[in-house]
Amino acid sequence: MAERESQVVLGLDPDPQALWQAAQPETRAERSAAEQAAAAVLRHCREVIDATAEACVAVKFQLARFEVLGAAGWAALAAAVEHARGRGLLVIADGKRGDIEMTARAYARALSGELDTPFGGVPGLGADLVTVNPLLGSDGVEPFVSMARAAGRGVLVLVRTSNPGAADIQDLELRDGGAVWERIARLVAEHGEAGTGAGGLSDVGAVIGATQPQHLERARELMSSAPFLLPGVGAQGGRVESLAAAFLPGRAGGLIAASRSIVDAHLVGGGDPAGAARAEAERLRDAAWTLSG
Amino acid sequence: MAERESQVVLGLDPDPQALWQAAQPETRAERSAAEQAAAAVLRHCREVIDATAEACVAVKFQLARFEVLGAAGWAALAAAVEHARGRGLLVIADGKRGDIEMTARAYARALSGELDTPFGGVPGLGADLVTVNPLLGSDGVEPFVSMARAAGRGVLVLVRTSNPGAADIQDLELRDGGAVWERIARLVAEHGEAGTGAGGLSDVGAVIGATQPQHLERARELMSSAPFLLPGVGAQGGRVESLAAAFLPGRAGGLIAASRSIVDAHLVGGGDPAGAARAEAERLRDAAWTLSG
Repeated sequence: MAERESQVVLGLDPDPQALWQAAQPETRAERSAAEQAAAAVLRHCREVIDATAEACVAVKFQLARFEVLGAAGWAALAAAVEHARGRGLLVIADGKRGDIEMTARAYARALSGELDTPFGGVPGLGADLVTVNPLLGSDGVEPFVSMARAAGRGVLVLVRTSNPGAADIQDLELRDGGAVWERIARLVAEHGEAGTGAGGLSDVGAVIGATQPQHLERARELMSSAPFLLPGVGAQGGRVESLAAAFLPGRAGGLIAASRSIVDAHLVGGGDPAGAARAEAERLRDAAWTLSG
Repeated sequence: MAERESQVVLGLDPDPQALWQAAQPETRAERSAAEQAAAAVLRHCREVIDATAEACVAVKFQLARFEVLGAAGWAALAAAVEHARGRGLLVIADGKRGDIEMTARAYARALSGELDTPFGGVPGLGADLVTVNPLLGSDGVEPFVSMARAAGRGVLVLVRTSNPGAADIQDLELRDGGAVWERIARLVAEHGEAGTGAGGLSDVGAVIGATQPQHLERARELMSSAPFLLPGVGAQGGRVESLAAAFLPGRAGGLIAASRSIVDAHLVGGGDPAGAARAEAERLRDAAWTLSG
């Protein structure tokens, strides 16, 4: 972050119907629809990354958008991750996985670890950060944390998401005080304790929707060392200016995730897609860097 | 279920280190470790399905175990799903996905729908039932429900999981009474209302760990029409005999999921893997069918 002077995370959730370059179906198709779509998605991801890399610190890949293209989509994801790394960006695998311990371990290997097999090691996706759903509790979170920690990587646990329905479960008030999301926040702080580095930040972070800035101060109280991933800026209505509490532990305390507001900037303000995306990413970068200074 | 006289769900979460046939790495490997492991996993899945299909009604695929093999794993999963269908079994995609609405829609397409692209439709995995994590609330569950309903398929929402850590969040007591999992149960009942068929069962079911049978009666009160998927029988300690409440709406009210207790039956009781697995699946089938009669 210091090197790039950026806290901006480029969110990529590509829809084959809405890519920068209009799709060109092959006339005598030797490849399946999935393979053609995956190739178009990969090209799009590379173009968006190339246009905005200088203004960003990380790319967040929305796994659903690749999973929906099956094996071809998974191969495109791996290639797009490699491209992001080549541009010096951190990689966030946004899969919101969560399961019982044994299965959580398999997901952790898939996204940020490696699997030993009789045929040799099978490398995972190589993500620096993985989003995790904590509904299954501590033993479902722990495998992600321990695997990330061993590799010098990190985890981002869903604490209070950016969507309207988040209130249904996460905001329920508990008999012993506080809301469900605050209990999850305590769990994040506990898991992060042993992984807090010299800079005061932990390897266990939290996903907190930028659409609910009123929760941020409380979240920072409960998780003083957790880096916050803040999705929902732009298209979902969140504003960078409301996010100051995230940066209390320092500039690296907040990662500003923006997807459509960057990738679709040309649809709002005109211009070519790459130029408009770069300009919007720069604008976000400046707004956040200034706010957190 | 009536045709097969079975409520048994074969759980497949294959580990390349522990397959029925010892792995044979290729000596002059032209395929990657991931491709060889995926081929071995696929062969294993086919063998287990062939051995136990007659005693089961469905196969539950643990997505993590395929995701960890990348694109090759996803291709193996698709082939294993096709094999299960060929043996007349329902397919459950156990991915525990959950996300904001737009992304949930992509996951629903990936697992039980289809994606329109400029290159043609990309079919999803074709699962009859998909497990869903409800932490993101109603708008994260709805896309799975509506897509499944349109296709005559169904959804299984995590309500009370079988692992020890489930207590951390799901069992928290609410200020207004009841536990978090009971609130989730109400959400399941609401989403299922419009999808309850003539047989009295809904297309929105619940995952309830067989390890906590004391919750079953209450769960049945809250979700009178939901089919229950009951994992944790066998290796995790759950017993079929404790699950009677699941079958109150009829025999199809409970799906008994067993993974290791079937696949690893030969490690406990000896014999060849296929014969031991078949015998254990038959034993479970008889126990559940008798109990629910």
